[in-house]
This record gives sequence, structure tokens and C-alpha cells, in this order.
Amino acid sequence: MTVRGENLIGAQARRGTQAAFRGIEAATGQTLEPDFPGASLDDLDRACALAEAAFDTYRETNPEARAAFLETIAANILDIGDDLVTRCIQETGLPRPRIEGERARTVGQLRLFAGVLREGSAFEIRIDPALPDRKPLPRPDLRLRKVALGPVAVFGASNFPLAFSVAGGDTASALAAGCPVIVKAHPAHPGTSELVGRAIQKAVAASGLPEGVFSLLFDAGQSIGQGLVADLRIAAVGFTGSRRGGTALVEIAAKRPRPIPVYAEMSSINPVLLFPGALAARGEAIGRAFAASLTLGAGQFCTNPGLLLAVPGPGLDAFLASATAALRESPAATMLTPGICRAYGDSVARLAGHAAVTRLAEGPEGSATQGRAALFATDSDAFLSEPELQEEMFGAAALVVRCPDLAAIRKVLEHLEGQLTASLHITPDDHAAVRDLLPLLERRVGRILVDGFGTGVEVAHAMVHGGPYPATSDGRTTSVGSLAIDRFLRPVSYQDLPDALLPAALQEANPLGLPRRIDGTLERR
Amino acid sequence: MTVRGENLIGAQARRGTQAAFRGIEAATGQTLEPDFPGASLDDLDRACALAEAAFDTYRETNPEARAAFLETIAANILDIGDDLVTRCIQETGLPRPRIEGERARTVGQLRLFAGVLREGSAFEIRIDPALPDRKPLPRPDLRLRKVALGPVAVFGASNFPLAFSVAGGDTASALAAGCPVIVKAHPAHPGTSELVGRAIQKAVAASGLPEGVFSLLFDAGQSIGQGLVADLRIAAVGFTGSRRGGTALVEIAAKRPRPIPVYAEMSSINPVLLFPGALAARGEAIGRAFAASLTLGAGQFCTNPGLLLAVPGPGLDAFLASATAALRESPAATMLTPGICRAYGDSVARLAGHAAVTRLAEGPEGSATQGRAALFATDSDAFLSEPELQEEMFGAAALVVRCPDLAAIRKVLEHLEGQLTASLHITPDDHAAVRDLLPLLERRVGRILVDGFGTGVEVAHAMVHGGPYPATSDGRTTSVGSLAIDRFLRPVSYQDLPDALLPAALQEANPLGLPRRIDGTLERR
Repeated sequence: MTVRGENLIGAQARRGTQAAFRGIEAATGQTLEPDFPGASLDDLDRACALAEAAFDTYRETNPEARAAFLETIAANILDIGDDLVTRCIQETGLPRPRIEGERARTVGQLRLFAGVLREGSAFEIRIDPALPDRKPLPRPDLRLRKVALGPVAVFGASNFPLAFSVAGGDTASALAAGCPVIVKAHPAHPGTSELVGRAIQKAVAASGLPEGVFSLLFDAGQSIGQGLVADLRIAAVGFTGSRRGGTALVEIAAKRPRPIPVYAEMSSINPVLLFPGALAARGEAIGRAFAASLTLGAGQFCTNPGLLLAVPGPGLDAFLASATAALRESPAATMLTPGICRAYGDSVARLAGHAAVTRLAEGPEGSATQGRAALFATDSDAFLSEPELQEEMFGAAALVVRCPDLAAIRKVLEHLEGQLTASLHITPDDHAAVRDLLPLLERRVGRILVDGFGTGVEVAHAMVHGGPYPATSDGRTTSVGSLAIDRFLRPVSYQDLPDALLPAALQEANPLGLPRRIDGTLERR
Repeated sequence: MTVRGENLIGAQARRGTQAAFRGIEAATGQTLEPDFPGASLDDLDRACALAEAAFDTYRETNPEARAAFLETIAANILDIGDDLVTRCIQETGLPRPRIEGERARTVGQLRLFAGVLREGSAFEIRIDPALPDRKPLPRPDLRLRKVALGPVAVFGASNFPLAFSVAGGDTASALAAGCPVIVKAHPAHPGTSELVGRAIQKAVAASGLPEGVFSLLFDAGQSIGQGLVADLRIAAVGFTGSRRGGTALVEIAAKRPRPIPVYAEMSSINPVLLFPGALAARGEAIGRAFAASLTLGAGQFCTNPGLLLAVPGPGLDAFLASATAALRESPAATMLTPGICRAYGDSVARLAGHAAVTRLAEGPEGSATQGRAALFATDSDAFLSEPELQEEMFGAAALVVRCPDLAAIRKVLEHLEGQLTASLHITPDDHAAVRDLLPLLERRVGRILVDGFGTGVEVAHAMVHGGPYPATSDGRTTSVGSLAIDRFLRPVSYQDLPDALLPAALQEANPLGLPRRIDGTLERR
């Protein structure tokens, strides 16, 4: 498959008419062929018109048809073969095993939502049958289902060129819900985006769906993204990226005549709590595991372990000895874009220059496009009084906060903003202390994990990749895992409709075979 | 039980220190004893501090304990006996059967949520067991549950002094979710509010719960309400009232350093579609039923049928003849407050003075505290071009829009803002036309009903009392029915936690007996 630098607008592929940009080979900083001229506002308007026109048909396709559609997308992505992997490696600088793994994850995610559709609980079918003889008033027949919100704007993420980009989690869950999707491609991997976009476009056609179910727009600037969120035909937004970018979209959405939900996954430093028992028992091993997690993918994960909390002592010393040794040997790694690399360098330099911070370790110097690992330390008093120490550094850098005791760890956690994850390293000796902190952690984060690190977000039914503001703009949801479909659904109730007028999902005979709650109780089948 | 004019702050009852107000006998306009001095910002701070202190304990009470607590509240409300009904009638001017019915509804609602707690699905327990041998990487043990958001601010509604006020739907669903509640009483029924508040306060004590689970604050002005929504200890807001009031709260919530969800049910004119077949078959009967629905409770329902759409003809003539005849004989009715009565009079006068509108009927004149029914007519061209014709008139007034054909009805619906309900009056002859409009209706409203009117919102599992903006500020939810609990919950995921550290809801042995989804499939029990 060739990359042509074209926007995909419904069934069409056409080059934009606005300022062009190119992909950049992450490792070398060299520009890649071809040009990607940006989409025009007319292109945006046409994509929205097609999505709007497709919506009523697409949302009423039966779940099996949408499941098969998602599986076709997955198959088409695999069919691109090595062209996709190669282009993706070029554009992101991520190593081949990571890209191949991420492709598997992307395909697995599409298939997971196919399963969610076949299982059917997501549509929350509820039937309260009429009680014509009830006193003082009869009860009407009431039936509830969840329906798709409407066309969804998805913003590709720089750091997951496949799994959180054109056919990533937001797209998969929105399409599963019955929402057409318009993706604004991330300019850091335009070729990858086009290839995956064509896989979806082909699946739309092969599945006999209205062309407006999917469009893909390129723009090096912000007018297409902002225009999408402001367009009255768009009903929800999925975004993974910076806090500044996410809050800007939230503001645009709130100012519309009809505000819409924005699911922005924005910023997290993912506290790691090193409990005394665990440090004493295996401080050195945890230090090594930490260094591996911190440097994975050049540290470019929203779940990267950016903050470590621990009480000083021989255990912490052992941890730091092995972590710093590992980081000093951890090769500098190519970052996703020159801009990200620069921003990472700036944030590390800012922290290094902070009066209350000392540098514990630094990785070997790399090329101009590479980031080097870094580990810093401060104490809890400084952390509590200096808000900038809480800022995310997007890359392989972390800050150790030395806390005099567990009470100080609690204070730091109370002071923290909302986070995606918290990791606890523990032994049975630490259980009492952990139990004491768990309620606080539950209020601060979306996922609590033991003896591991937040990187490696399993795509599963019980996953929450979300968390209180500003980890996300809407802490009531997850953007990874099967529950993510719920973001793009809303309930509608039908009262006393004749069976012939009810949607198939609610008809008495249950032609779609959906799980149903009758008078509040799940039907046995 | 005596009304004392006291704020209820946790276990305490104490008179406020700010400007006092009194209840007003709706029928006479006379003030009622006692004074209600407003709560101070110190009172607000104390209520929030108590709620915050209660939260971690309360949210982890087991579902059975919370169910029993809700049932105790229900019993305590009934135990107040006729004092409550009498005071409520005085303060609202609503007739005794309505108040008794509303009390039954309120009690039934609390019991419904007790049932929801015992059934347990709302907590969405999901377990994806570890797969230690999975290749290329083992899968961790993942467990998900929904947890309570945090302390909730509830604003009492003027038009449901029991069912959407101190112990109403928002309070019942928030308490069920595990959220402490601070109610800002509606100043239109302070005595009713205090009596019900004491019933809850008593139940908190009798159930051995932390006192901060419930507080009730009075304020004739807006500083307590605004302060509540801005307070960082408050995690969500439930509101039923005007569009202006609701959007003001949404703005305060969005400007917080940590924005929070606001569930505001705000404004709806509830289109009624009179299809040709139904009008021909039974126009006269529908006209009578419409007049009864319009004038119920002096028209003071958010689901009041304020807009009728029909194609002119003998059927519509018959409808209008019976509707106008019934409305002309429908006695003027006491409105909830002098302010509401004045606002209603103003909105009717504004419509009557509109060049494109004719008055079809007016009810008999009443006293200064009473509203008279009114029916107006315009045509679809005027309706489409004059945005003010779409404004809600809170009271027993409606506007008939004559549409030349079904295509014009569609245009009017496309032009409408989001609504709580749409009512369709049909015969089998109309099915094709209805089928054509249903997709549009699903996008505009929260509940579609056939051969009835939106008034009479059943408290049930399949009810949606919600709808796209501006019917509500968040169209993804319902404020009536068991699904309302979901507004106050968020998912948290637990990865590889030892069983001893897991919350009871997620422990392997399932000590709470909750329904669980294992690897995506609901467990058979």
C-alpha cells in the first residue's frame, strides 16, 4: 500500500488544499515523502455532513453487523503487512517489537469490541412490562436501551501511533457504540494514519455501510481540530494528549450552543509507593524493574512512573543504587518527534535547575533526536510547597520524593492531582499501611496496582484507563477496555410503543438476542 | 413534629445567622411560621467538612446496610404523618391527593434504590483473572468496581416538594451510590424541607452512620448554593429547575480547579405529535386528555405538554374544540410561589402579544396566586423563524403549531432543542409516518411515548427522565429510575492486589454476593 498524502473523506481520497506538512523520520529528523496538504474547512464540512447522513443508518445496524465490520477493519490492518510496520517505525522511532506488539493490541482491541457487541450488555436493555391493573394508576409498558450519541471526533495520539490513533481505542469503542467517526490524524505519524485510515475506509465499503461512517483529516495546525469540536454535527470527542490541548478542546465544547462530552486523557505522573517492607525485602530488584518501566518506549507513556514516594533507609538506598545504575546504562532513545524531544529536554533541565531538587542519575547522551533517562530527588516538604514539581515530564524522567514517614507519604498523596495509576510495592508486612492509604488512592486514581508499574495497560473488561481530573477531563469513564463503549451511549426510554414500532433491540421477541433486565432482574437464558 | 427553622448540619440542628425568610402559604400569599434564618458560609464549611469526613466510611458500608438506611428514611418520612402533608399543602398549594401521591412516590423511590443495592449490578463488578502463562506476556489479575464519586450537592426543586427535593430522586440515588449528600433546600417549601431533613437525620443516627452523611442548608439567596458547587469537597451536583439556574451552576462547576459533573434538569416543552390517523379517529378524546395533562398540578411539570404539532383538518378541529372547551372550564389553580405565578403570567402575556400567535382558549380567571390555563396557536413557518416561541412557559399553557404536512412537522422537530419527552398519538394507519420520525425523535428526547402524555413519570428501571441539552446539562443520564445511581459512580480498577487488600466487593469469595462479570461474561449463580 502506498502512502499518498490524501485525506479520506467518506469513500473519497483527496489531497488537501491547505498548508502541507510531512512525516519526519524520528531517528534522523529527515522529512519523509509524501506531502500531506492540510484539509480545508470545506473538507471538514463534507466529512461532518457525511457522518451526519450516515448516523441513523449506521447506529441501527445490528450488533453482529458492527462486530463483523470491526473484525474486517482488524483483518485489513493486518493485510497491510510490513508496509505499516516499517512506516510506523520510521515516523515514531519506536522499535519493531513495540510496533508489532502495538499492532496486535490494536487488532485485539477491535476484536474485543466485536465481542462486546455480540454479548450485548452494553446496550443496557431494560423492560418494565405494563401493569394495567395496578392501583391507583396502571403502569405503562416501559423499555429502555442505550443509543449512540452521534458522530464522534477522535484525535490521534502521538505516543500510540496504532493503538490510540486512527483505529485505536477511541475509534473502536465509538464505532462499536454505533457512532460514525471522524479522525483528526496526529501530524507526528501521517503515513501510518493514512494506511490505517484506508484499512477502515475499505472495511466500510466491504461491509456495505454508508461512506460517512469514517473520515480522516490531516492538518498541521489546529483549525481542523477546533472546527471539528465546534461543529454542531459532532456529538462527542475522544482525545489523548497534553493537558493544554485537552483543556482547550473542553473549553470549545463547553461554549457550543449544545455542549458535548469531551473524553480527554491528559496528564499523569503515576505515583509509585515503595513501602518499607518491600524496600527492605527487594529494594534492589524493584529498582531494576522501575528503571525498565521508566525507559520503556523512551518513557513516552501516560502511565510512566514519574513519581516515587518512599521513606529513606537502607531499602531505599538499595533501590536507588540499582535504579541509578540501570538508568546510567540505559541507552538514550529516539523520541516520537523533535518537538517532544525538545519539550522533554526542557522539562528535565527545569527540574535539574530547581533549588530543591538533586539529580541522582542521568543516562548516556544520545543524538539530537534522542532522550536520555534521568532520575531526580527531593523531599516531601519541597514537593508540597512547589507546585511545579508535580508537572508531568513526558519522557524517561522521574522524581523520587523522600518522605520522613508514612504520614508524609499520605500528605503528598493528598496534595496530588488526579492520576491514571498508582503502583504499590509491598510485602505482607506492609498490608496495614496499604490498607490505610487505599481509600485515598481510590479517590485519586483510576487504577491501583501492586508490585508492578502502570506501563502495559491491558485491554480487558476490568481495565480502567482513566482517573480524576486532570488525569482525564471526565473521571467517570475509561478509554481502554470494554467499558469504554459506554462513553458514546445514552439511554432512551420508550413508553407504550406498539411492538411493530419498537427498535429490534426492544421488541418482545428479542430478535437480536440481547441480554435484558425485566423489572430490574436479568433474564435467565 | 414541629418546624423550627433550623439548618441540619450533620447531627446538629441550628438556626442560621444570615438573612431570614419564611415559607409562604401558596393559596393566600400569607407568610408562615417560623423564620428560616439563612445558613452562613461557616455552616456550609462545616457541612462540607462533615460530608468529607463521612465519605470514606459511608461509601464502604455494605450495600445491605445502605439499603436498610434508605428504608429507614422512607419509614421516618411516613412516620411524620399528616404534619408533613399539611405543611406541604400549605407551602405549595398542591392538592392533598397529589401530595399524598408524591409522598408515596418518594418513599417508593427510596425503596427502589434499596432494591438496586441488594441486586448489586450497579457496581459493575468485573474480574479478568490472571493468565500467568499467556504469551508473549502474562496477564495480571484485574478487578473493576464502581465507587462513589464523593459528597454530592442536591438542590431541592420547587415543583416536587417531596419527590425531587430533600429526600427526592437525586438524594436517594446519591445516597445509594455511597455519596454523602448536602441539600440546599428550595426556599418555596422550607417547612416541608426541614421535616423531611429531620427524617433523614434521624435515620443517619439510627443506622449508626457518620453524621456527615446528610446536611440540609437554608438560604433565601444564592451564596450557599453557589458556595456548595464551588467547594472542592463537593464531587457532583444534582439540580432540577430553570435553565438559567442550571447553566449558572454548570459554569461554576466548570471553572473549578477540578471541574465536576452537574446533572441539571432544566427546560423542556415536550412536543406532542398528533398524527392524522389518531386525530381522525379520536381527536375529541385526545383533546380532553391533553387538557387534563396540561392543567395537572397547575401545569408545573417539566414534562408538561407545551407544544402540539399537527396538520390542520377536521381531526385537529375536533381536538381543538374539546381541548379549548375543557380548558375554558378548567379552574384556575394555585401556583407554587408568587414568583412562579408572576413569571407564568408574564410568559403567557408575552405569547399572547406575539404577532404570529393567536389565543385559542383561556381558563377562568382566578385569584392573584392562581394561574389560568391557556392555549395558543401559530403556524410552522412562524415557529421556525421566531426562536422565542420555543421558550418554556412554566404553567398550564401550550402552543399548537399548525403544520401543512408531515414534512413540516419534521422540520419543526429538527429545529427543536433537546427535550425530556415526545408524545405521539397514533393509529396503525400512522405507523409508517411514525417510523419515519422515530430516529429523529430518539436524537432529540429522552423518552418517547405513545398515546399518552409525559406527565406521570414512572419511577422504574426502564425510565429515562433526561434528554439532550438543554433538557438536561448531561444527556447521558436519567434523574428518575434506577439507572440514576450511575450518575454518582466511577470505575476503579485493581491490578494484582492480594485478596486481603481488595475491597469486599472484589474479593474472590464474593462475600457481598454481588453479580460479577468474569472475563466479560456474567457469572451464573
